[in-house]
Amino acid sequence: MTSVDHDTKRSTERIAREQLARALFTPDAVALVGASADEKKNTARPLRFMRKHGFQGRVFPVNAGRSEVMGLQAYPSVAALPAAIDHAFVMVPGAQVAEALEQSAARGARVVTVFSDGFAEVGEAGMAAQQALAARARELGVRLLGPNSIGVVDVHSGAVLSVNAVLEMDTLHRGPVSVISQSGSMLGALLSRGAARGLGFAKLVSVGNESDIGVGELVDLLVDDAATEVILLFLETIRDAAVLGPALRRARAAGKPVLVYKLGRSEQGEALAQSHTGALAGNDAAVDAFLRKHGAMRVELLETLFEAAPLALRYASHVPALTRAPRVAVVTTTGGGAATVVDRLGLADVEAVPPPASFVAHMAERGVKIRQTPIIDLTLAATSAQYRDLVEQMRLGDWCDAVLCVVGSSAQFHPQLAVKPIVEAAGVGSKPLLSFLAPEAPESLQLLQAAGVPAFRTPESCADALACLFRGAHVGEDASESCQPMQWPAGLPTLGDLSELEAATVFGALGVPIATAELVTEGALQHAVPYPVVAKICSRDILHKTEIGGVQVGVRDNAELAAAAERLMDNARRGAPAARIDGILVQRMEDRLLELMLGFRDDPLVGPMVMLSAGGITAELHRDVSLRPAPVTPAEAMQMIEEVRTTRLIRGFRGLPRGDVDALADAIVRFSRLAAVQGVTVAEAEINPLFVRANGVVGVDCVLRLAPATDTAGA
Amino acid sequence: MTSVDHDTKRSTERIAREQLARALFTPDAVALVGASADEKKNTARPLRFMRKHGFQGRVFPVNAGRSEVMGLQAYPSVAALPAAIDHAFVMVPGAQVAEALEQSAARGARVVTVFSDGFAEVGEAGMAAQQALAARARELGVRLLGPNSIGVVDVHSGAVLSVNAVLEMDTLHRGPVSVISQSGSMLGALLSRGAARGLGFAKLVSVGNESDIGVGELVDLLVDDAATEVILLFLETIRDAAVLGPALRRARAAGKPVLVYKLGRSEQGEALAQSHTGALAGNDAAVDAFLRKHGAMRVELLETLFEAAPLALRYASHVPALTRAPRVAVVTTTGGGAATVVDRLGLADVEAVPPPASFVAHMAERGVKIRQTPIIDLTLAATSAQYRDLVEQMRLGDWCDAVLCVVGSSAQFHPQLAVKPIVEAAGVGSKPLLSFLAPEAPESLQLLQAAGVPAFRTPESCADALACLFRGAHVGEDASESCQPMQWPAGLPTLGDLSELEAATVFGALGVPIATAELVTEGALQHAVPYPVVAKICSRDILHKTEIGGVQVGVRDNAELAAAAERLMDNARRGAPAARIDGILVQRMEDRLLELMLGFRDDPLVGPMVMLSAGGITAELHRDVSLRPAPVTPAEAMQMIEEVRTTRLIRGFRGLPRGDVDALADAIVRFSRLAAVQGVTVAEAEINPLFVRANGVVGVDCVLRLAPATDTAGA
Repeated sequence: MTSVDHDTKRSTERIAREQLARALFTPDAVALVGASADEKKNTARPLRFMRKHGFQGRVFPVNAGRSEVMGLQAYPSVAALPAAIDHAFVMVPGAQVAEALEQSAARGARVVTVFSDGFAEVGEAGMAAQQALAARARELGVRLLGPNSIGVVDVHSGAVLSVNAVLEMDTLHRGPVSVISQSGSMLGALLSRGAARGLGFAKLVSVGNESDIGVGELVDLLVDDAATEVILLFLETIRDAAVLGPALRRARAAGKPVLVYKLGRSEQGEALAQSHTGALAGNDAAVDAFLRKHGAMRVELLETLFEAAPLALRYASHVPALTRAPRVAVVTTTGGGAATVVDRLGLADVEAVPPPASFVAHMAERGVKIRQTPIIDLTLAATSAQYRDLVEQMRLGDWCDAVLCVVGSSAQFHPQLAVKPIVEAAGVGSKPLLSFLAPEAPESLQLLQAAGVPAFRTPESCADALACLFRGAHVGEDASESCQPMQWPAGLPTLGDLSELEAATVFGALGVPIATAELVTEGALQHAVPYPVVAKICSRDILHKTEIGGVQVGVRDNAELAAAAERLMDNARRGAPAARIDGILVQRMEDRLLELMLGFRDDPLVGPMVMLSAGGITAELHRDVSLRPAPVTPAEAMQMIEEVRTTRLIRGFRGLPRGDVDALADAIVRFSRLAAVQGVTVAEAEINPLFVRANGVVGVDCVLRLAPATDTAGA
Repeated sequence: MTSVDHDTKRSTERIAREQLARALFTPDAVALVGASADEKKNTARPLRFMRKHGFQGRVFPVNAGRSEVMGLQAYPSVAALPAAIDHAFVMVPGAQVAEALEQSAARGARVVTVFSDGFAEVGEAGMAAQQALAARARELGVRLLGPNSIGVVDVHSGAVLSVNAVLEMDTLHRGPVSVISQSGSMLGALLSRGAARGLGFAKLVSVGNESDIGVGELVDLLVDDAATEVILLFLETIRDAAVLGPALRRARAAGKPVLVYKLGRSEQGEALAQSHTGALAGNDAAVDAFLRKHGAMRVELLETLFEAAPLALRYASHVPALTRAPRVAVVTTTGGGAATVVDRLGLADVEAVPPPASFVAHMAERGVKIRQTPIIDLTLAATSAQYRDLVEQMRLGDWCDAVLCVVGSSAQFHPQLAVKPIVEAAGVGSKPLLSFLAPEAPESLQLLQAAGVPAFRTPESCADALACLFRGAHVGEDASESCQPMQWPAGLPTLGDLSELEAATVFGALGVPIATAELVTEGALQHAVPYPVVAKICSRDILHKTEIGGVQVGVRDNAELAAAAERLMDNARRGAPAARIDGILVQRMEDRLLELMLGFRDDPLVGPMVMLSAGGITAELHRDVSLRPAPVTPAEAMQMIEEVRTTRLIRGFRGLPRGDVDALADAIVRFSRLAAVQGVTVAEAEINPLFVRANGVVGVDCVLRLAPATDTAGA
C-alpha cells in the first residue's frame, strides 16, 4: 500500500467510526421495535424515558397489533415506517429479531441494538442463532449491539434506547462519566450509586453478548467522544482483547482514564462468569496483567469504580510513574479514622510518609505545630486557616506524591466548616488531594465533590482508589510494536505438538540458549556432545517422557549410551506403542545455581502471556509466578524476575552465589516473542527447567504446542 | 481454699462487677470536673448532652471560676460538692487530674473517667504520670477509665459522660448494640454510620489508654448487661489478652456475638498502632488466631463492623461449626449484582451452591422454574409469591446453610415490592437469610432491616459478614483448661537462654521426641550414642552454633570425634571467647522425609503462640506458617499441619512416601504446653529443624529463652 492509500484507509475508518458513534449514541430517527402500549411493560419504557429525558429526534414505535402507542402513531413493521432511521432498538421475541434486522437495514439503520434474549447465553442453539444474526448484519453493513443488551443511553441528548428501570429517575445527571457494562442489570445499579455520590454521566452502554460491537470498540469510540472524560467498565469476561488493549492505550494517551471492575478474582467468581457468559476459562492473574499493561485501572471494590472516577478524572494524566512506592501525606483530626485508610494503603504498597524535619520546621515558622509522624494529627486547637495552610504547603512540598485529608465528626455536624480548609487548599498545587470522611456525612461528601476534591465514603475504597491512581501511571512501552516478527523455521510442523528437538530449534531461533543436543538413532549413536550426557526419547507424541521411562541422566560414555538407548527404546515401545519416535536426543549435562520454569500460553481471554515461575515442587506448593502479556520489554522481564520470590536465591541471598540475571531477562524477552512468530499460532510452550548459572542461562527441556489451523487464521 | 470460700469469692466478685457496671454506665450522681460554661467548648458538651438525652440522675458541674454553669449551680472543686457521687468525668488539664481523683474518691466515686490527655500517649513522662495515677486509684479503691478517654455513654438512660461531638444528634437510637473503641474519635464515626444503617445502641465506651479498665473487662461487663445483645470492638492493639480471651468466650457462650475491627492488617498499619498507642510490636496473624480461637468475629472492612451486627445478633448462636465450606443459596433478579457478592464469597471460602436436582424438581411441582446454577436467576416473569415460596423452601431445605437474596433495580423505585417476598419469607425456617441491594436503595435497606432481614450496602461487606458468621461458629475447646501444667525440671536455669541440652531436656520432659544426645568433654569423649553422630558445641551463650563453626556433621567413629571436638573447641574459643562452654554435644544423625520448624513465642499482644512452618529457606522465601494460641488441642494441631503447604509433601503428594502426621500433631500439642510450664515464663523456643519420618518425628536442634524475672510475676 502507498502512503496515500494508507491515509485514505485511515480517513475512511475515521468516517466509519464517526458514523457509527452518531447512529449508536445520538441518532436522528429511531425505531422501537416491539414497543408496548401497556405502560407497565418493560417494552413501553424506552418511549417514556426518551420523552422524560428530552430526546429531540424522531421516534417510531413498531407494534404489530396497534396503530398508536402512547399518543404516537405506531407501525406494523419496520418496513412500514414512513421515513429512514439510524438506529433500531429491537425488543421482540428472539425468533423475530432476524426479520427486524433485515427491515431495519432496508430502512437505513446503521445500528441495531437487540434487547431480545435467547441467544448465546442459553446454549448451543442460541449461539448458532446469534452467529447467523451477526453474519447477516455484516452482509447488510449494519452494526449490532447485543443481543441480550439492556440498551444504550446518551444522557446529554436523552437518547434512551434502553429498558433499564433505573432510567425512570426524574433527572439523569449529565456529566463526563461513561459506563460500559457486560451486565445489563448492573448498569442501572452503577448509575444509581454513582448519581448518589454526585457523578454525572455521558454515555451508558450494555454490551449484552457482544456478537458484533464489543467493549474494546466502544472504548475506542468513547476516546473520540467529546462528552466523555472518564470511562468505567463493569466486566464479567474479555471477548476482544486484541481490540481492547490498543483502545485502552489510546484512552490513556488521550487523558481519559479507564477504571475497571472485573469479576473473577476468586475461582468461584471466574467459574460463574464462564457459565454466565459462555466465555472460556481464563486466568485472573492474566487479566490483571493485561489491564495493567494497557494502563487501565482495575479496582478491587465495586464502590471504588465510581468513587475513584473523580480522582482519576482530575489527576490520572498528571501522576508520574514512580519506581518506588507512592508516598502520601496524611492529615487528620481523627487518628483512628486516618489509620483505617493507612492500614489499607499499606496492603496496597502505598506509603504514609512522615514529613521531613525541614518541613516540620517550615510549618513551625508559619505557626503550625506538627510532628514527624506518618499521620499528622492536627490538634483541635488548630484553626481552619492553619489546616488550610498545612494542606497547601504539603501540596507544594516535594516529599509526598499526594495529600489525604481524613475528616472526623465535624463533617457530620458542621459540614461547611469541616471541609472549608480542604476546599480552599484545592486551589494550590497540582498534587492529588483527596479526602476520606470518618463519620456518616453525605453533605460533606457532596461539598467536597462539588469543589473538585475527590471524597470517599469508606477507608477501603479510598485506599483502593489511590493505589489504582499510581498503578495506572505505569503504562509500559508495548513490546509488540518494536518486536521483529520471526518467520517460522522451515521444515518444522505448523500444527500440533512439536518434538523436544523441534521445540528447541524454535527457541534457539529466537535466541534463547538451549543445551547442546544431537539426535541419534539406536543404530547410529555417534555424536559430538561431550560426556556426561542425558539421553532422552525424542517424539512429538511423547510429551511426558519421564512417566514412561524415557529419560536417562548421567550417561558417561559410548557404552553407557548404547545401553541407555536400548532401554529407552524398549520403554517407549512399551509405554507409548503408537508414538512415532524420531530417535534418542543426546544432550549435554548442564550445571546450575537455580531451576526455573519459563512458560508461554495463548490465554483464551487476553491472548499471549509469558510466565516465569519457580521450578519443580516449589511452583506447585507455593504459588510463585509472574506473568505479563507477551512479548515483553527487558524492563518488564526484570520486573518479572523480581516478582518471583525464588529468584532471591540468585540475587544475593545470604551470601549464596549470584546468578546471571541479565541473561535470564534476555531469555525471557526472546522467549516472549513466540507471540510474534509468523505463519503459526503458538498455543503453549515451556522450558522446564531453565537453568540459571553464574554465567548465562540454559534451557534443558522444551515443549511447544501449536494451535489448530482454525486459530491461526483468527485475529 | 474450700469450696465455700470459692463461692464467697465468686459472689464478692459478682457484686463488685455489678457495682462497677452501675457506677460506670448508670450512675445516680455524677461530677463533671472542668465543665465549661462556654457552650462552644468541648467541656461544655456533657451537660448539654445529658439534658438533651434525658439523664435523670444528679449532675454536679465542677468549675473553679464560676458559681453557675448553664443554669446549674457549679462547685469550685469535687471536695466542695454537696452530695456523694458515683462517677466523676474529669476534663481538667492533665496536671490537675490526680487531685480530682483524690477528691472524687473522697466523695464516694467508684469510677473516674479521665478525658484529659498528656499521659502514656505522649511518651515516657506521661507514662510515668499515668502509672502513678493508676496506682493511686488502686489504693483508693477507685476504678479508672482512661486517661485520654472520650467518655462513656449509656444510650438508654442518657448518661452521656462524653465530649464526643456525634452525641450532638437529636435522638440517640436505642437498641441492643454496644461499642467499645480504642479510638475516641472513631466511636462517633461508628455511632453515626451505624445509626444511618438503622442500628440502635446500648453502651458506648472509649477506653483511652486503658490504665485500669480495659477492653477485656468491659466485654465481661457487657456480657452481664441486659441491654446489650451484640458487642462491637474497634481495636488498635490488645493490652489485656489474658482477660479479653475468657471474656470473649463468655460472650459467645451467653449468645452475645462480638464483632471486631482491628487495625494492623498491614505492616504500615501495625507500626502506626504501636506508635499511636505505645503498644508493643505484635503480629497480626497472632492477633487473628487469638480472636478466632475465642470466637470473636474479626471483620475485614470497617463497614462490616456495623453492617454485620444484625446478622450476628440474629444468627450467630444458631450457626453450626461446619467441617466443610459453608454453602449459601443465592437467588436474584440481577445476575451481575449477585456475582459481585459470590466472587468475594469465593475469596472467603464460602461456596455459592447450586440446588440439587431434587430441589429443582420440588420447585417445579410448586410452579417455580429454576435451574441448577450457583446463582438462581429468577426471570422477571416470576411473581412475588413465587419468589417468596422459593426463598422459604430454600430455608427449609437441607442443601444450603444460608440464603442470600440479591435485589436489583426494583429496590430503588419500588422498595416495598422489591423486598416484600424476602420480608415475608423471613418468618419461615431458621437458616440465616440476608440480602444485598445492587442499586443505591436506602429505603429498601431500611425496610429489610426493620423486618429483621440483615441487609448490606456493598457486596464486599455482605460477603465479609457471611464469612465471619460461619467462621465465628468455630470456637475451639480451650486446651489450657485441660492441660496439666508441668513443673520446671529441677537443676535448669530459670532465667535467660538455655543451652541446647537444657532446652532438649525441657522438650523431652514435655514428651517431644528429641534426638538422642550425650554431653562429653574434650578430655572425656566416651559416650553410648551410635555412630554416625553430629558433634556440636554446647553453651548457653552460643545460640547460633553454625556461624562460629560449632557444628560437625557425619562424625563416623571415636577418632573422628576426637578431631572434631578439638576443632569445635578451637572455633568456639576463637568465635565466642567469653562463652561458658558446657562441652560437646554428641547427637545421633537422624534421617527424615521432611524438615519443619516448630516455634513458640510469648506474643506481646496476645500471649503464648505455637507456630509450625516450613524449614530452612522455604520458610523465608514463601511464608508458609500456621500459628495458634498455645497450648493447642490435637484437633488444632492437625489443622496447623494442614495449613502449612509444605506438609503436603508427606501427606500423599505425587506418590511420595507419607510422614507420620499423627506423631507430628502429638509433638505440636506437647511442645505447645510450654505455655503452661510452672515456675518460669518461656519467652521463645524453637525446634529447628524438626524431622518428620515415616515413623515418628524427632527434633535435632533446640533453643529456649526464658523471660526476665519481672515477666514471670506478671499475669
